[in-house]
Amino acid sequence: MSKINAIDRFLNPQSIAIVGVSKDFTSISGKPIKNLIHHNYKGKIYPVNPKYDEIEEIPCYPSLLDIPGEVDVALIAVASKRMLQILEECKTKKIHHLVLFGSGFAEVGEEGRKLQEQVLKKAKEAGIHILGPNCVGLLNVKKSIPMGFATSFETEKGFQPGNVGFASQSGAIGFSLFGLAQEENIGFSYIVNTGNQMDIHSLDCIEYMLEDKDTQVVAGYLEGIPDGEMLIGISKTSKRLNKPVILLKSGRSEIGRQAALSHTASLTGSEETFQAIAKQYGFISVNDVDDMIDAMKVFRRGKKTAGNRVVTISNSGAAGIAMADYSEVLGLEMVRMSAETAREIKAIIPPYGSALNPIDVTAQALKEQHILTDTLEILINDQDIDAIVFQTTFGGELGKKICQKIAEIDKLTDKPILVTITGTSELTGEGRAILQEAGIPVFSTSYKTMLALKYLVDFSAFCRKEDAGLQVPENQPNAKSGDMSGIWTEERVKEELSKLDIRVPKGTLIKDRSHLEAVEEHLQYPVVCKVISRDVLHKTDAGGVKINIQNSLQLENAFDGILQSVKQYAPDAKIEGILAEEMFQDEGIEMFIGVKQDPQFGPLIVCGLGGIFIEVLKDASIRRAPVSKQEAFDMLKELKGYPLLEGTRGKKKRDVSALTEAIVQVSQFAAQHKEKISEMDINPLWVFEDGKGIAALDGIIIWKNGVESTVSAGTI
Amino acid sequence: MSKINAIDRFLNPQSIAIVGVSKDFTSISGKPIKNLIHHNYKGKIYPVNPKYDEIEEIPCYPSLLDIPGEVDVALIAVASKRMLQILEECKTKKIHHLVLFGSGFAEVGEEGRKLQEQVLKKAKEAGIHILGPNCVGLLNVKKSIPMGFATSFETEKGFQPGNVGFASQSGAIGFSLFGLAQEENIGFSYIVNTGNQMDIHSLDCIEYMLEDKDTQVVAGYLEGIPDGEMLIGISKTSKRLNKPVILLKSGRSEIGRQAALSHTASLTGSEETFQAIAKQYGFISVNDVDDMIDAMKVFRRGKKTAGNRVVTISNSGAAGIAMADYSEVLGLEMVRMSAETAREIKAIIPPYGSALNPIDVTAQALKEQHILTDTLEILINDQDIDAIVFQTTFGGELGKKICQKIAEIDKLTDKPILVTITGTSELTGEGRAILQEAGIPVFSTSYKTMLALKYLVDFSAFCRKEDAGLQVPENQPNAKSGDMSGIWTEERVKEELSKLDIRVPKGTLIKDRSHLEAVEEHLQYPVVCKVISRDVLHKTDAGGVKINIQNSLQLENAFDGILQSVKQYAPDAKIEGILAEEMFQDEGIEMFIGVKQDPQFGPLIVCGLGGIFIEVLKDASIRRAPVSKQEAFDMLKELKGYPLLEGTRGKKKRDVSALTEAIVQVSQFAAQHKEKISEMDINPLWVFEDGKGIAALDGIIIWKNGVESTVSAGTI
Repeated sequence: MSKINAIDRFLNPQSIAIVGVSKDFTSISGKPIKNLIHHNYKGKIYPVNPKYDEIEEIPCYPSLLDIPGEVDVALIAVASKRMLQILEECKTKKIHHLVLFGSGFAEVGEEGRKLQEQVLKKAKEAGIHILGPNCVGLLNVKKSIPMGFATSFETEKGFQPGNVGFASQSGAIGFSLFGLAQEENIGFSYIVNTGNQMDIHSLDCIEYMLEDKDTQVVAGYLEGIPDGEMLIGISKTSKRLNKPVILLKSGRSEIGRQAALSHTASLTGSEETFQAIAKQYGFISVNDVDDMIDAMKVFRRGKKTAGNRVVTISNSGAAGIAMADYSEVLGLEMVRMSAETAREIKAIIPPYGSALNPIDVTAQALKEQHILTDTLEILINDQDIDAIVFQTTFGGELGKKICQKIAEIDKLTDKPILVTITGTSELTGEGRAILQEAGIPVFSTSYKTMLALKYLVDFSAFCRKEDAGLQVPENQPNAKSGDMSGIWTEERVKEELSKLDIRVPKGTLIKDRSHLEAVEEHLQYPVVCKVISRDVLHKTDAGGVKINIQNSLQLENAFDGILQSVKQYAPDAKIEGILAEEMFQDEGIEMFIGVKQDPQFGPLIVCGLGGIFIEVLKDASIRRAPVSKQEAFDMLKELKGYPLLEGTRGKKKRDVSALTEAIVQVSQFAAQHKEKISEMDINPLWVFEDGKGIAALDGIIIWKNGVESTVSAGTI
Repeated sequence: MSKINAIDRFLNPQSIAIVGVSKDFTSISGKPIKNLIHHNYKGKIYPVNPKYDEIEEIPCYPSLLDIPGEVDVALIAVASKRMLQILEECKTKKIHHLVLFGSGFAEVGEEGRKLQEQVLKKAKEAGIHILGPNCVGLLNVKKSIPMGFATSFETEKGFQPGNVGFASQSGAIGFSLFGLAQEENIGFSYIVNTGNQMDIHSLDCIEYMLEDKDTQVVAGYLEGIPDGEMLIGISKTSKRLNKPVILLKSGRSEIGRQAALSHTASLTGSEETFQAIAKQYGFISVNDVDDMIDAMKVFRRGKKTAGNRVVTISNSGAAGIAMADYSEVLGLEMVRMSAETAREIKAIIPPYGSALNPIDVTAQALKEQHILTDTLEILINDQDIDAIVFQTTFGGELGKKICQKIAEIDKLTDKPILVTITGTSELTGEGRAILQEAGIPVFSTSYKTMLALKYLVDFSAFCRKEDAGLQVPENQPNAKSGDMSGIWTEERVKEELSKLDIRVPKGTLIKDRSHLEAVEEHLQYPVVCKVISRDVLHKTDAGGVKINIQNSLQLENAFDGILQSVKQYAPDAKIEGILAEEMFQDEGIEMFIGVKQDPQFGPLIVCGLGGIFIEVLKDASIRRAPVSKQEAFDMLKELKGYPLLEGTRGKKKRDVSALTEAIVQVSQFAAQHKEKISEMDINPLWVFEDGKGIAALDGIIIWKNGVESTVSAGTI
């Protein structure tokens, strides 16, 4: 059975066995049955424990084998050392879905890791799927089926169903977040805690939920990425179905990474890479539990924005100021409204208010309640506005009436309306509930509101983004796989770059002294000479570079000098020749374009400015290859040094278009050879003034085959 | 009467008149009396309105003059145009404390501004103090006296007194924050909303509350800084009394600034300057309302930290990972515990938990509840730990018990204990309440907890910080006030810098061609020649600089060449001479040190690296002058380019000590001449390798007197 189908069965069991069940309902092994009973589970419950005959009048069985009927899901609450035997019973009894609560597996070291491997092997053989181990369970909210011992299952209020699905590697974070979100009337479809993810992992669940018709928003808490390719696939589904995926990933710091490894044995991967992937593939990456809840709020309404132009209305001037401040920080645009809209608003608000964005309707709205909502009605018809943020501190009856009116107006427009109500539950609770009922996102502070809007704007932009240029041609003429091993040194790389339409200096490889004359035939002075040897990767250190060679005498001297220096520096180096190249008249701005293999996501493309930008500021942009021209441009704009390319303080603009084209080409090359490439570094790459193009001055490619792992292309 | 005494009377009135009172208790003019009655105000209430005889059986008077008794505070709810007449009545009736709710003053433009001036003038003459206008009132929480129409006055629960005081320029933000904080059981002493701040402003209230014996934590919402010097004085009081001042300042963006101006006519000042001042003077600068509440929580307990070393305990491995991540981002240190402490903890937690920081006691603590609290008891005795963060998702009876135990342990230690409880109110509300009762800070997410701890660590560090070096000598020998006007050009500035022990190149001013010989007598070749003229501030553009002059012939040519170029460039320029200077053998890293006058805070000292750091990255550190050597060092460490000074990629460390000394000297100079200096720029300032000092290569000072405002020293 596929994992997707397995998850479906896990979430919709007709019968549940609980192995190692306890009558102590405060214990981990007692809570699961208590929760099922408490939430009126409609299927069969089969407690398993030789110590009891019944639990709460439900017959209890000595072993799984004694159960009379079929078992869809077995919840296992016994010590890890008994797992192999339990598996044997499951096999016999044809139970294919196990939830393992217990610890004692990969997270406790070598012995546990071995046990985990054995269990997984046996399970696979028997066609058994496992959720966990080291997990607190799962919950079908729609059908109110709690399977596990999460604290939030112990609610007296029942669960509120809705369109948000949540997969969490951590039970504590998963179910406490669920509880908090339910307090804000956010309804869920499913929650699954995957724990050690021996078999079913977080991305499996996310994929299932994305495809589920009742789920419109999917959230995931991850400590590691179990499968990079799968995450990219999820991005495509997310875009195709217009369903956002919100991710909270931990293990970002070094200590956090170590702790994750000891916690659920997760390799977390690099934070920079994950954030780059999230940006590129439209995942909403959040910082903490409350940000995730805020993202759920804004997405579950299902509206999108057409852009980032926001208008704010408030009865408090101060809140308006604050919202303008946050907009700037978050990259939202406080839109300048049309004169007509401003005039209409001016006509209904008091003279000491502000009809300009941020709109301040003043406390006068306490008296004339229509002011706030009339303003809102005007705004929904202005085509230059993408989203409306409404802030009020009013509570009580007045607050309720305003909220009712907002809920009505919200139905009339495709524009998202976000609401901030800063006030106590006592005073504003009823108003909030009205909005929550209508699915309208409501927050308690302005920053939270604006941040949630930013999530919505980002995902909407991702959905609009064209994927043009992301197809890697299958049979590029450039692809010559014959020699794709070892190290490609400068002249070989430049040959390849030329084929990719990336300009390189005109040059010729001098294999011995007799070829020197050929230089003058092909090239114009001044020239530069560089040693070519895969044993000499740092040419300058080896004395392997001479610049500004003006005539044949200097050329001969350079040739001899380089050979002599390099032989001194690395006596055993195999020298392929000396590369003579024409020098450019203008000096370009120094950049680099690199490729590195990521164990999770394959080839990443990296670019940045040279010198202090990379050395001191570590200023580099990362994306997964391939990238489109727009994506390449976004990479550049992220750089702290980007103003240098734009032209700053009277300096001329640089040829950004040629540069982005080169990034695209290199990214396509990397993607095309993703199985073979290990690292690539074009450095320096000169960017000339606008219209004058770029030039790759040096480069190296390290292929996976036949190279020891200690070699590194350098910059990245 | 001083403002401080006035505020005391405003907050503790024996009798309150309400002018323009209404019987409609849902209106702005009806709410104040309703609130006083509702909260059982013990003093006299005098409603004033010729339309009524009584309100809720309290006699109502036609005018203030008809009131039989004395009036301590009059709440004024009438239109602005009646204010002058009301003032007249107050003067006659000897009422000295007015709260003005209404709008129609400076925030509505020229006419309102004039009225505001007239009212203020008349009030001052009569010894009357005014709170507002454009404000919703104030609240003495200790005595339960609400004076105004804030929504949060309408609570059924009564107010919870405590040790937090809050002054807010905005009524909406002030009182909604108050309501939210009260929901989290944070008790207050006073809340004052200052509105347009015609007379009493936010800093007056902060000063009053700082000195108030019942207030231990002071918070302020500000749109502008009414008085820079006063804010600095408040910092000193804050440090002396060990009471933190938490500030939320808005108007940080350009649109926000404009909105603030139209809202309460506040000039907001520059965001960069405010954040620099906050850092330097120990204010806790927060981003939004909820951050302010979190800061209140952590400070009201009154504990301090000895450093930034934190340990975290949790029953969730995931929460531990998250806390480690946030620590790194926030600059907290996840302390490596002593072997002894780790051993003790290892002995009590399950083997699959983690005894290392982050400590993971696992869900086993559900069964063995003592595990969590026993671990806590071990940690409070470890001298290498400055703060403990405790995270749990447990609710119900178990959660309650754990919280009770934490409250007991908290009393036994000076170390702050911060708690995160991620869970619903239904499940965790009682536990939270126990902690809140004990004053222990409790938050709902880990990021909030770690951020609050960061506030506490920062304020504790501020309280420990020595003020050494901050005294500006009254009569420095350097002070020569005679010529402190106009512009000081390079050679005059260098003369002054020498007196401040800041090295400058050895040089001599050549006033005419006959002085050229003197150069060879005094200086060693190579030398540099530069034009000196206050009419030529950009020497290079004017062809006014020649470098690398090796002999007397080149010197003569340079002299003639410069004069010729400059005369062409600026025919009317008055040339004081040509400065010849020895060149340094080594090249230094290029920095600048500048001074600029801030209208609120006086001279600011600014420093940064030259070139792209300032031009592209706008990378500069700001402080108010003077600064101590430590503060100067902190300024450097803030710079993005700081690694260049530390020595990066094999480059040698630079003479940071000499550089900080220079910053201190310049800052003292600026502070000493704070009345006269307008701008100063030492640029470039070269920083040589460690031990080899620094050198100022160029500089300019612009004094306030006699210079048109269009001149600018450039860099800053």
